[in-house]
Amino acid sequence: MGENDDGDVIEHHVEEEMEKRDARSHAASSFPENVTPSDRDQEGHSGTQSSHRLLAYSDALISIIATVMILPVAHTKMEDTEELRQSLQLLLTTKIAVYLMTFLIVTVAWAAHIRLFQVIVRIDDCLALLNLACMMLITFLPYTFSLMATFPENVLGILLFCGCVMVIGVIQCLIVLYAFSRPFLLNEQIQISENQTFYKEHILKVIMRVPLMCLFASIVSFIFFQLSYVLLAIVIFLPYISQALKWCRNKAMGQVEETPDSMMFYTYLPNEPLSKERVEAFSDGVYAIVATLLILDICEDNVPDPTVVQKQFGGSLVMALQAYGPEFLAYFGSFATVGLLWFVHHSLFLHVTKATRFMGLLNTFSLAFVGGLPLAYQLTHEFPNNSRNELEAIQISCVIIFFAGIFQLAIWVVALFQEQETLHPYVRYGGHEHVFMLAKLALYPCVALGTFFLTCILSKFSAPIFHLMEITVPFAFIVLRLMVRMGLVLLRLVFCPDRPDQRSIIVEEDETRVPFNALGT
Amino acid sequence: MGENDDGDVIEHHVEEEMEKRDARSHAASSFPENVTPSDRDQEGHSGTQSSHRLLAYSDALISIIATVMILPVAHTKMEDTEELRQSLQLLLTTKIAVYLMTFLIVTVAWAAHIRLFQVIVRIDDCLALLNLACMMLITFLPYTFSLMATFPENVLGILLFCGCVMVIGVIQCLIVLYAFSRPFLLNEQIQISENQTFYKEHILKVIMRVPLMCLFASIVSFIFFQLSYVLLAIVIFLPYISQALKWCRNKAMGQVEETPDSMMFYTYLPNEPLSKERVEAFSDGVYAIVATLLILDICEDNVPDPTVVQKQFGGSLVMALQAYGPEFLAYFGSFATVGLLWFVHHSLFLHVTKATRFMGLLNTFSLAFVGGLPLAYQLTHEFPNNSRNELEAIQISCVIIFFAGIFQLAIWVVALFQEQETLHPYVRYGGHEHVFMLAKLALYPCVALGTFFLTCILSKFSAPIFHLMEITVPFAFIVLRLMVRMGLVLLRLVFCPDRPDQRSIIVEEDETRVPFNALGT
Repeated sequence: MGENDDGDVIEHHVEEEMEKRDARSHAASSFPENVTPSDRDQEGHSGTQSSHRLLAYSDALISIIATVMILPVAHTKMEDTEELRQSLQLLLTTKIAVYLMTFLIVTVAWAAHIRLFQVIVRIDDCLALLNLACMMLITFLPYTFSLMATFPENVLGILLFCGCVMVIGVIQCLIVLYAFSRPFLLNEQIQISENQTFYKEHILKVIMRVPLMCLFASIVSFIFFQLSYVLLAIVIFLPYISQALKWCRNKAMGQVEETPDSMMFYTYLPNEPLSKERVEAFSDGVYAIVATLLILDICEDNVPDPTVVQKQFGGSLVMALQAYGPEFLAYFGSFATVGLLWFVHHSLFLHVTKATRFMGLLNTFSLAFVGGLPLAYQLTHEFPNNSRNELEAIQISCVIIFFAGIFQLAIWVVALFQEQETLHPYVRYGGHEHVFMLAKLALYPCVALGTFFLTCILSKFSAPIFHLMEITVPFAFIVLRLMVRMGLVLLRLVFCPDRPDQRSIIVEEDETRVPFNALGT
Repeated sequence: MGENDDGDVIEHHVEEEMEKRDARSHAASSFPENVTPSDRDQEGHSGTQSSHRLLAYSDALISIIATVMILPVAHTKMEDTEELRQSLQLLLTTKIAVYLMTFLIVTVAWAAHIRLFQVIVRIDDCLALLNLACMMLITFLPYTFSLMATFPENVLGILLFCGCVMVIGVIQCLIVLYAFSRPFLLNEQIQISENQTFYKEHILKVIMRVPLMCLFASIVSFIFFQLSYVLLAIVIFLPYISQALKWCRNKAMGQVEETPDSMMFYTYLPNEPLSKERVEAFSDGVYAIVATLLILDICEDNVPDPTVVQKQFGGSLVMALQAYGPEFLAYFGSFATVGLLWFVHHSLFLHVTKATRFMGLLNTFSLAFVGGLPLAYQLTHEFPNNSRNELEAIQISCVIIFFAGIFQLAIWVVALFQEQETLHPYVRYGGHEHVFMLAKLALYPCVALGTFFLTCILSKFSAPIFHLMEITVPFAFIVLRLMVRMGLVLLRLVFCPDRPDQRSIIVEEDETRVPFNALGT
């Protein structure tokens, strides 16, 4: 290990030069040499690597694929003369359903991937290549799904889908078998455990459940294809169903037969830990794709043709671009909204110490709505002013923003229920950041709800109200801290006007440490 | 701090339960509570956060935007009757040029962003919002650029572009001023430095250079617009020009006037450190987008219309899908190639301890070629078999793969020149992973070159050769370790047949520790 020691000295030297404390603490996790001594020993098995970057790349791929299916929805051209309600019905029946189902299925595949790589914490070249093959098949799932939606009565879609899922299952089994044959790749808990074989069999059993169901569904599809759709639906909700059944049985039998504490993985309990880092990476990917979806279209479609400019606008490019004005407005509006929703998500997960399965589920719902945002924004500018279509498009946008925000709020509320485990002390109930976090999370749902009702009442001014909302919300975020503080002072004045303000005596340098729990007493 | 201490105890408990060593070491970097004690003190300034996730999100956005402009190129429909050479000339003149220039400009903006956030290592809400505004303008740059390319004689494109750059510059200045007014946000080196004002002024001067040039260019554009293009070109190459001028002056004057060692940031030297983590994140984003670009098109365009299937194919979906066969092949081919190039990149950066500016530049070139891959693969399947077009498309694909791979190899070669600083000991010349890394990096360029020349000679079989290459390369990666070992044994047999094989005595458990340096002796 003489070489390695040399390397350490040099590296510390380099890092001292760089003097980047933060960068160093991140980098530490990806440098094989900076890891803990127990990892160091494993370096002896050459070619073993930290799985960090492989997972980041997988998250990026899966998040792109999850949001891709919104594009066919967005590109469905709507006729101005047609009523939005009618075209929406057409959209709703197939494309939006496909989008939502794809999002759900891809996130199920993603959750399975997380679970797998919570057990396998180190990789080598072979695992990396197997994982890439797995990713290739996952990215193909949306296509098989849209085939199923377009040709519901044709078995080919079902067969392709089941085929993909089965191959993914086989690859995952290969990964598990390979990893258990080289135990230094595994999670430390399993590595030191005595009954590794039990773990292996349990994990293989869980993984094989889905492909076996798919095999069954594909066989059934030849006889009675409607049944195979039911089977596929069962596949998705399998963990929930089995959990519910287990719970019912335990209640009926009157005995509480918990899984042993040592079984931390593949439990499918709502509080099963989910890698917080991967939830963040996946969300970042979705937010980034969604924020830029509209610029994809703008770059492709909204550069006017030189001959058209010459003929129709007398060579004036400014005039030609004015026709695209609403689309630019839609772009900036949706970018700002998605960016600010990301900002809220970012603030929230800064304060979360442990993500659970249930929080992950709520996060998925929030992201599914976020994915629909660019489409909604695009719709708001596609119809003539003051038309019924425009009003409905604006109201749909408000509803989408509302749900995207309310599910973020729900994550926090769920976290608060187990705040000892999942939240940092300063955002728990009574913590000094509690109210501010609540205000951040509540801002978008409240604004969306307010805009929705305002447009109901003042339907003539729906567009100006909506644009005003777009412009004011970013500024609202900037002055939010100030607003929260003023609100609290007001509340205190109203409810406890006689109480001497202790804070004026203890002058804290930190302006925002508002003792919210003081209100309760 | 009583609350915080409580939190620590709980958190350690939670983490013991989770028993995920690796996840913990990653998470440590994003949990404000797990950071070093000096960070802990800064938590007193409420709302201060690690910048890690903000940078990851920015990297994702910028990598998407950098690769977006390949889409207009890919969507240019080519007529089967037309010669590829002619349509390529049309493409080359505008769209490919726009793609490459956008890629270059966006990566310049990205490099400026890295530089900025190497100085500012912690953020608060205000900085996060300012950064989002900055991102919004960066994502708009490609559009202004394609306007400039379509209407080169119209000043509007130049004005929009310059306007964007100027606003970005102003926002970056605001960020710097804000961060220097709260020094706890800054890099530790600057934080403890005595001449903070000097740093601030130096950084502001560097940042303002570009917007000022743009302001000048936009004024000039009204008088003599060709000159403003020259000015914009100067903006991009400004750091290189100023470096070259400085070098020339120093040579001429005969004196070596180095910047003081303390000035680590904004030096624009080729070995200026570049955050390795961000280079990886940006590359991951580009590889992920590029790998999925074709599935975007497939999901949208390749679901046949039910009525067409009924009429043209007699209701047989399988027959209808066979028409799309080549496109699926193109998808899997390009996904596999991009995935394997990512795999090589991943292996390379596992062994890199410090990324420099020059390595970043080479990485950008490699990524720019990777971005063109899906297009090239799509072209190979768009033309009739054995046509001249098909041959040329296949050869273009080979050239793109070759350059993407050769620039990756170049990164390693550059790193080897300063191997003490930039590489882990075991991949340095003579290290036990050296030959294997070289083989990984050389595989794609060699295969691409071989395929290119084979198609030149056996032009009739170009398509089968190309498909054979697609299929064999993934397997080649799997057996590469074996191949390297056999190659070394062969080399040893040829060059030193008499030497007793020491390795047969010292039986190492690690099979691949081939002492390459033994060859030299």
